Amino acid sequence: MSDKPIHQDLSAQVLDRMFRQDGFSQWMGMEILEISEGHCVLRMTVRKEMLNGFDVAHGGITYSLADSAFAFACNSYNHLSLSVETSISHSRAVREGDILTAKADLITQTKKIGNFQVIVLNQHHEIVAVFKGICYRTDKKVVE
Amino acid sequence: MSDKPIHQDLSAQVLDRMFRQDGFSQWMGMEILEISEGHCVLRMTVRKEMLNGFDVAHGGITYSLADSAFAFACNSYNHLSLSVETSISHSRAVREGDILTAKADLITQTKKIGNFQVIVLNQHHEIVAVFKGICYRTDKKVVE
Amino acid sequence: MSDKPIHQDLSAQVLDRMFRQDGFSQWMGMEILEISEGHCVLRMTVRKEMLNGFDVAHGGITYSLADSAFAFACNSYNHLSLSVETSISHSRAVREGDILTAKADLITQTKKIGNFQVIVLNQHHEIVAVFKGICYRTDKKVVE
Amino acid sequence: MSDKPIHQDLSAQVLDRMFRQDGFSQWMGMEILEISEGHCVLRMTVRKEMLNGFDVAHGGITYSLADSAFAFACNSYNHLSLSVETSISHSRAVREGDILTAKADLITQTKKIGNFQVIVLNQHHEIVAVFKGICYRTDKKVVE
Repeated sequence: MSDKPIHQDLSAQVLDRMFRQDGFSQWMGMEILEISEGHCVLRMTVRKEMLNGFDVAHGGITYSLADSAFAFACNSYNHLSLSVETSISHSRAVREGDILTAKADLITQTKKIGNFQVIVLNQHHEIVAVFKGICYRTDKKVVE
Repeated sequence: MSDKPIHQDLSAQVLDRMFRQDGFSQWMGMEILEISEGHCVLRMTVRKEMLNGFDVAHGGITYSLADSAFAFACNSYNHLSLSVETSISHSRAVREGDILTAKADLITQTKKIGNFQVIVLNQHHEIVAVFKGICYRTDKKVVE
Repeated sequence: MSDKPIHQDLSAQVLDRMFRQDGFSQWMGMEILEISEGHCVLRMTVRKEMLNGFDVAHGGITYSLADSAFAFACNSYNHLSLSVETSISHSRAVREGDILTAKADLITQTKKIGNFQVIVLNQHHEIVAVFKGICYRTDKKVVE
Repeated sequence: MSDKPIHQDLSAQVLDRMFRQDGFSQWMGMEILEISEGHCVLRMTVRKEMLNGFDVAHGGITYSLADSAFAFACNSYNHLSLSVETSISHSRAVREGDILTAKADLITQTKKIGNFQVIVLNQHHEIVAVFKGICYRTDKKVVE
């Protein structure tokens, strides 16, 4: 019998519903390391086809990883949530073969609005990007 | 003999240098519609593998298109430029088969910092996202 | 009898309700130049007490002017609106005696979320700041 | 004889140079609680003249406090720094008499760009705003 709190199980169900059918996150090669209410950790390895013309990862790669972690963390409460505004600062070049880990955490919330921070680290535990995401919570559920 | 102003030709050379080797922009299927100093227009079609678990385009797709248009517009002056901060607000769902056009334009600049806006439209001329990008200009050139 | 459209009158009533009791906007010396649905223009003159230690206007002065224009434009539809996220890029120093004009305009909206841009100009029509604001619309009205 | 590290003393000298002549931060009633490299804590009390038409603190008040903490933390290394982009999310209403504390900390930096987060708390230790600031470091010094 599981000793996980029921909410964590629900977060896992939401994630399962979202991730299983998320073709782009799967193309990216994202793996789920952690999921719980207001929190998500994802990991991926940067491939050659993800590089831009300067031989570093396209900004869209790091953004996409962070945005997925944000989306899973937002919806982890089982309120269907919409991204309202996201921003990302890229602080260090990402190269082929780098292993990126994105950690999303809730910073503040009101009834309708959630404010998350996602820190993206490389395999040397250096911050490569800082992401902020704001979501709007609808009254719908992700899983019944 | 070309009647294009020389600067536009230089912007085109920079873009050619950047785009030809940009594997991710090419995986995305981006086409270049316009390039000149401080300005770039890109277009792409959304494919099934770009969708998330809610059957709409992953936020990273629209971001990546806008970020490419921003990067090409930043570097169009032939000063190698680094992205300092970008933000995007997604205002309308994007679906499989939608044709997205991203128009990047310089808003303000100082010697070292450029501030760009990118508007992303769908095939019905509706705004699907508003992107803001800030870049830092180094003293290096993109093409000699 | 007035020939103004009724909505513009309502926007003006909302602004009157908000501005009359807005002690800080009045301390700032803001004047209202234009108000209509989704649009507001404010003007102010920078005073000595608004400068920081480098003898230029504190970043909070330009922000406050832009934020007021944003707030009045958000609420102009008479749906009580809350600021969700705002950002500002300062592109040019502002000095004592400068006359600043902030023009707020709706860029995109959904039923619940509005996305506004505010451009702040000085008396030489130079952009001193670009502001973006996102608001959430409640079901309450500002004026009955 | 002081046992403070010399860098902290330099940060304090920079702050002294900036704060002593910062008329607006003084109008706001800001007090300095902590200053060291990449770090600054400020406090202030919200006065009646800082309220907007809904009887809550104008967004510009919280922004100004956070922006001052950001500016002092940016310049604390004694490299004259310019604000490139700032954003703030207001998550809780601030009222007359509230005592606000803004804690600014460096998140990441490159040679030229610094990325700071400022958390603003009220007297109940509740987060009222989350601020992000990006600065560009010039080669000039603040104090010789």
